[in-house]
Amino acid sequence: MTTRWKIIIEYDGRPFVGWQRQENGLTVQQVVEDAIEKFSTMAVRVQASGRTDAGVHAFGQVAHFDLSVSRDPRAVRDGLNFFLKPYPVSILSAEPVDDSFNARGGARERRYLYRILNRRSPPALDRGRVWHVVAPLDVAAMQLGANRLLGHHDFTSFRASECQAKSPVKTLDELSISQVGEEVHVTARARSFLHHQVRNIVGTLSLVGLGKWTADDVTTALEAKDRSKGGPTAPPDGLYFMSVLY
Amino acid sequence: MTTRWKIIIEYDGRPFVGWQRQENGLTVQQVVEDAIEKFSTMAVRVQASGRTDAGVHAFGQVAHFDLSVSRDPRAVRDGLNFFLKPYPVSILSAEPVDDSFNARGGARERRYLYRILNRRSPPALDRGRVWHVVAPLDVAAMQLGANRLLGHHDFTSFRASECQAKSPVKTLDELSISQVGEEVHVTARARSFLHHQVRNIVGTLSLVGLGKWTADDVTTALEAKDRSKGGPTAPPDGLYFMSVLY
Repeated sequence: MTTRWKIIIEYDGRPFVGWQRQENGLTVQQVVEDAIEKFSTMAVRVQASGRTDAGVHAFGQVAHFDLSVSRDPRAVRDGLNFFLKPYPVSILSAEPVDDSFNARGGARERRYLYRILNRRSPPALDRGRVWHVVAPLDVAAMQLGANRLLGHHDFTSFRASECQAKSPVKTLDELSISQVGEEVHVTARARSFLHHQVRNIVGTLSLVGLGKWTADDVTTALEAKDRSKGGPTAPPDGLYFMSVLY
Repeated sequence: MTTRWKIIIEYDGRPFVGWQRQENGLTVQQVVEDAIEKFSTMAVRVQASGRTDAGVHAFGQVAHFDLSVSRDPRAVRDGLNFFLKPYPVSILSAEPVDDSFNARGGARERRYLYRILNRRSPPALDRGRVWHVVAPLDVAAMQLGANRLLGHHDFTSFRASECQAKSPVKTLDELSISQVGEEVHVTARARSFLHHQVRNIVGTLSLVGLGKWTADDVTTALEAKDRSKGGPTAPPDGLYFMSVLY
């Protein structure tokens, strides 16, 4: 009897070349699959709800895999964490789910957080975990720009050239900007995102926050359906994959 | 004309053997003094408000030093940060102060934060930045225990054997425990602290939180004036030097 398992994963993206297994470096997928193999003595393939790029972090990545041995949920979580010890990757929960559960295809909503450290001095404690923007950002202006991107749009202007999604049309359910101490936080929620969509949106909104673009410029960029008309790609450092709803 | 400078410093304690210059490894004091020397072309000695141990972090360490060249405050801050780039150390502010200012002797109040990650799974994103305690902590019980340590006491039971303070008598002005998501935060405020005092107090209160000790046991330990009667020393990972008042 095979059991399908759903796991929630936290990781520090800095030492990894991203989620997805590849030849040119360490990936989160590889260390998780290796841990499952050591724990279960079986080679398995793990399917995540979404790939994350090199340097992107996760507080709540979700993935599934199948095990043909029966195990207690706590034993799966703790056993995987034991074998993950050398890496900044932690299994927050493991639960048996229905065979029809699919971490990628079944996701109804994904949530990302983007952290901008907005002060003169560089980060010391959060190096690699925030985007450092020195000039003051106008959070209210950024929110006005963000509002232009809410809803159902063709996001070609905010899509990486290597994006493999069939359609550039997505529905952005939330794009909120808030000041949290010295940081500006951007929260984005959607059923799914295009490759680099959050980072390209944050890069664009930073232009608005700096007074270089108006909200109308954001609309113009969106309507151009041309990546070269969008703003720059914000660095991976500040991006956190927060949660998935099914 | 010599000018005395006050700087506020943020640092990640992980790569350092502590604040104070020593032979056996990299220290925060050394990299800050080296940055000042590169910036000003003068060798200076920096005096901090308090030493921190290996692995202890700071959001608001304060230090002073004297420069015989005249410089703009923003140039000092940005110049030091330029030379500090290889290290997770950041100068948050630099300001000229009266010659009588003394970062160590003039401090009226120091504030520390201790972060405990209280969940089953180990930290991934905050590895080295929190103390991971697996068993559930009773925050209300910890606060009752903490209340026994508030005020003016002989803290010998919570003092490292190598502590160089003249007297073990200190006044603890605040010792508050709060639940913040999956974390338990301990905030401590006093004019000054003994060596390892916060970590020894947190280790002791963790016994209360785990139900191994009662608040009365904390009083018994305090009154014993004997380090061997206090609880264990919490690891440096969760300790943050937050701020100093003058």
